Amino acid sequence: MNFRSDNVVGVAPEILAAIAAANEGTAPSYGDDAVTRRLERRVAELFEHEVAVFPVATGTAANALALASLAPAWGAIYCHEASHVQTDECGAPEFFAGGAKLLALAGADAKLAPATVAAAMIERGIVHHVQPAALSISQATEAGTLYRPAEIAALGAMARRHGLAFHMDGARFANAVAALGCSPAELTWRAGVDVLSLGATKNGALAAEAVVFFTPAKAADFAFRRKRGGHLFSKMRFLSAQLEAYLADGLWLRLAAHANRLAARLSVGLAALPGARLRHPTEANEVFVELPEAAITALAAAGVGFYRWGGAASTCLRLVTAFDTREADVDAAIAAAARIKIS
Amino acid sequence: MNFRSDNVVGVAPEILAAIAAANEGTAPSYGDDAVTRRLERRVAELFEHEVAVFPVATGTAANALALASLAPAWGAIYCHEASHVQTDECGAPEFFAGGAKLLALAGADAKLAPATVAAAMIERGIVHHVQPAALSISQATEAGTLYRPAEIAALGAMARRHGLAFHMDGARFANAVAALGCSPAELTWRAGVDVLSLGATKNGALAAEAVVFFTPAKAADFAFRRKRGGHLFSKMRFLSAQLEAYLADGLWLRLAAHANRLAARLSVGLAALPGARLRHPTEANEVFVELPEAAITALAAAGVGFYRWGGAASTCLRLVTAFDTREADVDAAIAAAARIKIS
Amino acid sequence: MNFRSDNVVGVAPEILAAIAAANEGTAPSYGDDAVTRRLERRVAELFEHEVAVFPVATGTAANALALASLAPAWGAIYCHEASHVQTDECGAPEFFAGGAKLLALAGADAKLAPATVAAAMIERGIVHHVQPAALSISQATEAGTLYRPAEIAALGAMARRHGLAFHMDGARFANAVAALGCSPAELTWRAGVDVLSLGATKNGALAAEAVVFFTPAKAADFAFRRKRGGHLFSKMRFLSAQLEAYLADGLWLRLAAHANRLAARLSVGLAALPGARLRHPTEANEVFVELPEAAITALAAAGVGFYRWGGAASTCLRLVTAFDTREADVDAAIAAAARIKIS
Amino acid sequence: MNFRSDNVVGVAPEILAAIAAANEGTAPSYGDDAVTRRLERRVAELFEHEVAVFPVATGTAANALALASLAPAWGAIYCHEASHVQTDECGAPEFFAGGAKLLALAGADAKLAPATVAAAMIERGIVHHVQPAALSISQATEAGTLYRPAEIAALGAMARRHGLAFHMDGARFANAVAALGCSPAELTWRAGVDVLSLGATKNGALAAEAVVFFTPAKAADFAFRRKRGGHLFSKMRFLSAQLEAYLADGLWLRLAAHANRLAARLSVGLAALPGARLRHPTEANEVFVELPEAAITALAAAGVGFYRWGGAASTCLRLVTAFDTREADVDAAIAAAARIKIS
Repeated sequence: MNFRSDNVVGVAPEILAAIAAANEGTAPSYGDDAVTRRLERRVAELFEHEVAVFPVATGTAANALALASLAPAWGAIYCHEASHVQTDECGAPEFFAGGAKLLALAGADAKLAPATVAAAMIERGIVHHVQPAALSISQATEAGTLYRPAEIAALGAMARRHGLAFHMDGARFANAVAALGCSPAELTWRAGVDVLSLGATKNGALAAEAVVFFTPAKAADFAFRRKRGGHLFSKMRFLSAQLEAYLADGLWLRLAAHANRLAARLSVGLAALPGARLRHPTEANEVFVELPEAAITALAAAGVGFYRWGGAASTCLRLVTAFDTREADVDAAIAAAARIKIS
Repeated sequence: MNFRSDNVVGVAPEILAAIAAANEGTAPSYGDDAVTRRLERRVAELFEHEVAVFPVATGTAANALALASLAPAWGAIYCHEASHVQTDECGAPEFFAGGAKLLALAGADAKLAPATVAAAMIERGIVHHVQPAALSISQATEAGTLYRPAEIAALGAMARRHGLAFHMDGARFANAVAALGCSPAELTWRAGVDVLSLGATKNGALAAEAVVFFTPAKAADFAFRRKRGGHLFSKMRFLSAQLEAYLADGLWLRLAAHANRLAARLSVGLAALPGARLRHPTEANEVFVELPEAAITALAAAGVGFYRWGGAASTCLRLVTAFDTREADVDAAIAAAARIKIS
Repeated sequence: MNFRSDNVVGVAPEILAAIAAANEGTAPSYGDDAVTRRLERRVAELFEHEVAVFPVATGTAANALALASLAPAWGAIYCHEASHVQTDECGAPEFFAGGAKLLALAGADAKLAPATVAAAMIERGIVHHVQPAALSISQATEAGTLYRPAEIAALGAMARRHGLAFHMDGARFANAVAALGCSPAELTWRAGVDVLSLGATKNGALAAEAVVFFTPAKAADFAFRRKRGGHLFSKMRFLSAQLEAYLADGLWLRLAAHANRLAARLSVGLAALPGARLRHPTEANEVFVELPEAAITALAAAGVGFYRWGGAASTCLRLVTAFDTREADVDAAIAAAARIKIS
Repeated sequence: MNFRSDNVVGVAPEILAAIAAANEGTAPSYGDDAVTRRLERRVAELFEHEVAVFPVATGTAANALALASLAPAWGAIYCHEASHVQTDECGAPEFFAGGAKLLALAGADAKLAPATVAAAMIERGIVHHVQPAALSISQATEAGTLYRPAEIAALGAMARRHGLAFHMDGARFANAVAALGCSPAELTWRAGVDVLSLGATKNGALAAEAVVFFTPAKAADFAFRRKRGGHLFSKMRFLSAQLEAYLADGLWLRLAAHANRLAARLSVGLAALPGARLRHPTEANEVFVELPEAAITALAAAGVGFYRWGGAASTCLRLVTAFDTREADVDAAIAAAARIKIS
């Protein structure tokens, strides 16, 4: 009953099998292999668009390398104040982008509104100021909420108007696609997204993310940045194989839909407890719920793993479901919290 | 018959099995798991020394992060002009070390002599000059040669005398240990090495290297550097499991000894050809041999994979054996080259 | 009648004379000269404390180099959202500090309160987060307001409690000292400040600032950072001579007191106009005043130079007085604005 | 009799007068002033070419900012192993260029030959290698020697062929122009130079250099780099005034010709001593001469300032003349060395 994160779980069997299957004979190293080439075609097909695809192993690498491709060292990157790039990557975007500045903005449910970004827009061409360069949003967000296609398109239009490149941190992109029932295209390039960090690790991969450029011209230097960052795998086929299996036959969406469904179940169950209140709507696979301390104690006592969101004294919990979360565990968690409340 | 590199091969079965075995239940992420803790103890035991161990996924990450821990941005890092850090990492050490300067020195068979480094020593404390900070050597070297313990110790003594931290790029450290029959301790901290990039990927892992600090004080910031570089794996257990299996029951040395033995066989066979000449002695798992163009053509025609060392016009070949190279392939390669020479 | 900034004016005669006087014979370069040594003693005497003093030519260099000495690349630097380091240096602190993150906080009149900083304190030791490293405040602030000694001391105590080094951007430090009638010591090291960017350029120098470390241990690497940043002058005596003259015989405070007095006069005059409102109290040499558009037009028509604070549509003006502002110009500006209002 | 460097001397009277003359009234800050605009036109006229001109205060800033404009972080910058950018800037080019790699090459008399650079050319497009980006030469060189126009043109042609941008460190460009009697154009853009660091500090300015782009497109980001590096002066007119006076009425060439003439006189005198040998031909204002230890002792005893070139034990001296070196001092130095030799 470990709901601390979707990275405490292991690897989906299909993906582990794909790794084993890729372990056949020799293959050109550093991405010049057949699996990687098939992956590129698969991503293009899936997104219905020409793409440049770069597998890496961590979400931080995907985001930081992507943003470094979009912003010069004197660039400003607009993001939400709760975004992973701002709060949870130990400054990786600044490191890879040579000291570019993240401008962290507020917004309900960890979502940015176009007007918020536009209001913070720095006038261009004045040498004293960092220069507007990129917009980065997370889909699903760090609050477990989702941008609708129209919301992304509005951000995309605003970005275009202000000359911002548009990056999407899709560490939980599958959860968003599964929940919204949109096409991947609708949520990305059709809405103006230039680059997507397409996550797989949190949804069943061992360690695999793909940086997907819908504007391949922006990818011109990416290969050098990736190598120079130590993120080019010599045995690349094993990264690509994870991603290929992930995207094959809808596996990624099945895994995500499962996590989403159990998060909804957990959310409904916990929100119904006396004194409980959802901090954010549960739209993907994360539940943010304020609970009475007694319920929290009960959960902990029952061995349920969670985070106190906002520090050790917080009574808002984050619980995250994963591709392999069991319904019985969800129900047991709810029961544990409920039982104590009754007594 | 692909001898292009030891990274064109796949994963040793024992290591693949360890990955699968680690895929059990949930585990704390980011290295706070049981496998990673066991790995740390194992490395300490193997090296007979207190260590700080940081798994990463690529050799470039291991080297660049290690060097960044040893040199300030205004530091000088002494290395061989043929070293991987100088020639094959697209400037990763400079990137991670904030623009530190690699001073590339000459030396026969890709080995540095203490006197060469000492002669290039920059006077300390003069603000116009980068400041001597670190020495980095490769073991085995990029020429497939080996430093003997006494040679490393002499470098270590020189480094200490000049206030240099001492780094060893051990992408092929197993091959060195297997070939020399020394203890890991003898080749590292006993000879003055502060930090080792302990490679596994080239010797049967999927993607796993360990940065091993013998001077843990120097590791104080490493965790931040690794995270900030995007090299902290959320599902760390799968990196650690590779390394644990690698170092268990002598697997790493068995795999390396096999590669070394077949390299020696290949070396002897090719060197015996008319017009052939070894460029460097074959001491680990790499063969550097100058061959008549006809023999090279014959090898290529027979489907043997190799690199022309030094560019497309070079008649010096590099051939690398791996943990799973087949004796029959070695013999077939030799025969292919020999056959043509006769005709 | 140019009140756009205190950097549109020239050089105080005493400082120009000192430059000419320093142009005598040869002198050791790069700061090993007699003038620079005298300067160091003078600063120590003035601040009643052991100091390490590094002349540079721009305020941006002073601030960025100082902050880089206080924060690692993965450090967090707490500052006001209106501070020069955050808004007006094109990311120089991030550049020099290797991508450290500025955390920009709110506060009335461009001043930070200890509680605001404490509330934003990031928990230490968690590898995902940048690590609290430094606090930077401006004295006088970008709103032309002043921290009292007790306010600085409270920030200093908070900084010490949280392990933050404490930097003061003193581009207008003279204006603060002159206005508050405190000793330089009281406003700096006695209140916990570790490093001061002691400005002179805005108050009569040609181009000269001194980075003053009250905690010399923190200055260990500064000389390398300065050189590497291109900020070490070969003919250093001409920087030092400016600063020596500036600090001799109370010149710096006379110049600043003059500017302060005329700012007060301008502030009173403009604030008395119908429809006028001071945005911030006028405590140093900057006036921030909201005026009716007609008054603004009148000022412009009369050839008065100013900035519309917050963009071209703003009706809040910034007017800055300098060491050589003439009383008649202040009165003429007030009259210009008043005249139109009457008509 | 201080021949240690051309930066131990002061400021030419004409330049000091220009600084004083610029101290008139208020002027727009940060380079938007009349003096700076006049300077731009003057440089264009002098070089007979469209230019973008950026005044900075130090040669290190000029070189590092120029190179950062020409090379990406993963770029290779070809330079001489004795060049200032390689040996005397504490890694500033690497810092400003985000960790680009300087490839230091040999060449007689501190000059690079096209073939040497071409032979070191890294193959493009291979992600493991830094990518050829720029060539940087010094004119005059660090050995006090000169490239002839045809030599520069040959390097320029080679650079163009290999896609390298071409930078010239002209810290002593005036000495070169004065000695060769060429037009500035001939030595720069006509020979393929893209960017010149045009020095003035070593030849009579207080602290002023101009980065001159002959390919203005390459200057697109320079203003941001300069600001971000802390190298944008608020009272820019005082930098520009130095450069304007320097380039007016041939002052720069008169000053340089004087230094050159006295260097020649010093060179002839010292080379004629028994046991003396010129290390490099004396073509500009630097003399490199090997002398018997007794002569060196005699020079030192007579109060002559010089450097032992290559360290404290070297018997090769560097003596540098300047714009205001006195003939009598040159003769006295020669006599001092000669006298002792005779006794």
